[in-house]
Amino acid sequence: MKYCSHCSGKVVKAIPDGDDRYRFVCVECKKIHYQNPLIIVGTIPTFDHRILLCKRAISPRLGFWTLPAGFMENGESTRDGAVRECYEECLAKLEDVKLFAIFDIPRINQVYLFYRAQLINPSYSTTAESSEVNLFDEHSIPWEELAFPVMTITLRRFLSDRRARNFTVHQDTIS
Amino acid sequence: MKYCSHCSGKVVKAIPDGDDRYRFVCVECKKIHYQNPLIIVGTIPTFDHRILLCKRAISPRLGFWTLPAGFMENGESTRDGAVRECYEECLAKLEDVKLFAIFDIPRINQVYLFYRAQLINPSYSTTAESSEVNLFDEHSIPWEELAFPVMTITLRRFLSDRRARNFTVHQDTIS
Repeated sequence: MKYCSHCSGKVVKAIPDGDDRYRFVCVECKKIHYQNPLIIVGTIPTFDHRILLCKRAISPRLGFWTLPAGFMENGESTRDGAVRECYEECLAKLEDVKLFAIFDIPRINQVYLFYRAQLINPSYSTTAESSEVNLFDEHSIPWEELAFPVMTITLRRFLSDRRARNFTVHQDTIS
Repeated sequence: MKYCSHCSGKVVKAIPDGDDRYRFVCVECKKIHYQNPLIIVGTIPTFDHRILLCKRAISPRLGFWTLPAGFMENGESTRDGAVRECYEECLAKLEDVKLFAIFDIPRINQVYLFYRAQLINPSYSTTAESSEVNLFDEHSIPWEELAFPVMTITLRRFLSDRRARNFTVHQDTIS
């Protein structure tokens, strides 16, 4: 951030009155530009006992496998956003959508929210975002080719809960 | 948003290639400026059976009672942010902090995350943000003077879970 989105004046880093941390502040109109963490909403879509994964057709981590997930948009709920991302990434439709986990990643200012869900039917497809889409049983998950650590953690917790036949809502910080 | 924070060029609303919704796009450097929901982190602090509430000394809803809560900052976890907000608003320190609820408010692009927690000791104080701070038992909560509907919903769910001696993680959309 170099310029004020309100008046186009230059911004500097300064601690505003009554605040305790540096913010971008416009030297012209004095507007404070706050920067806050982003929410990423995702799902663990299953059909029978298999889990749907998408191979990324876009950067970052192109060619690696991921649970469908993406940035939450204004005007939607976290649940609706998670369902939307699954449809956008692989044209799969979901039902029985339940909160599964919140994972904070403060190092990159992201909060992941995962919902577990059932595919309405085993219908899905590659898209501009996914070069391959597949249902994996527990023993065929491509652990070494997962796109992000948060995906590995989410899948491990999900499988552990499923084995125990006891789903809980997970909350943790990934450092 | 009127100007590009990167180059100070004018921004217009346009649907970028490969996207399906309007974004602010710079007419000069073509940078896309995404706008995303904000996270508000809060706590339900208790001591013995009483719940801590703060009377707002700032707008909006000045003079109304609230659970301590505020915007999550970059570089912190949701849990740490919730604990920080409680200290900033009333100088109370918390322990045994557990996820309680996620409430989406898509109309105003906000996601509330509440943790339930215990006060380490019954020490708290007014601050620049809170003109009064008090511990309330269930029957003395000022229901008619709560600052926001999400506070009423959170307190009702908390009391209901406590009566049932069964705390769950709540997830809902507030319209």
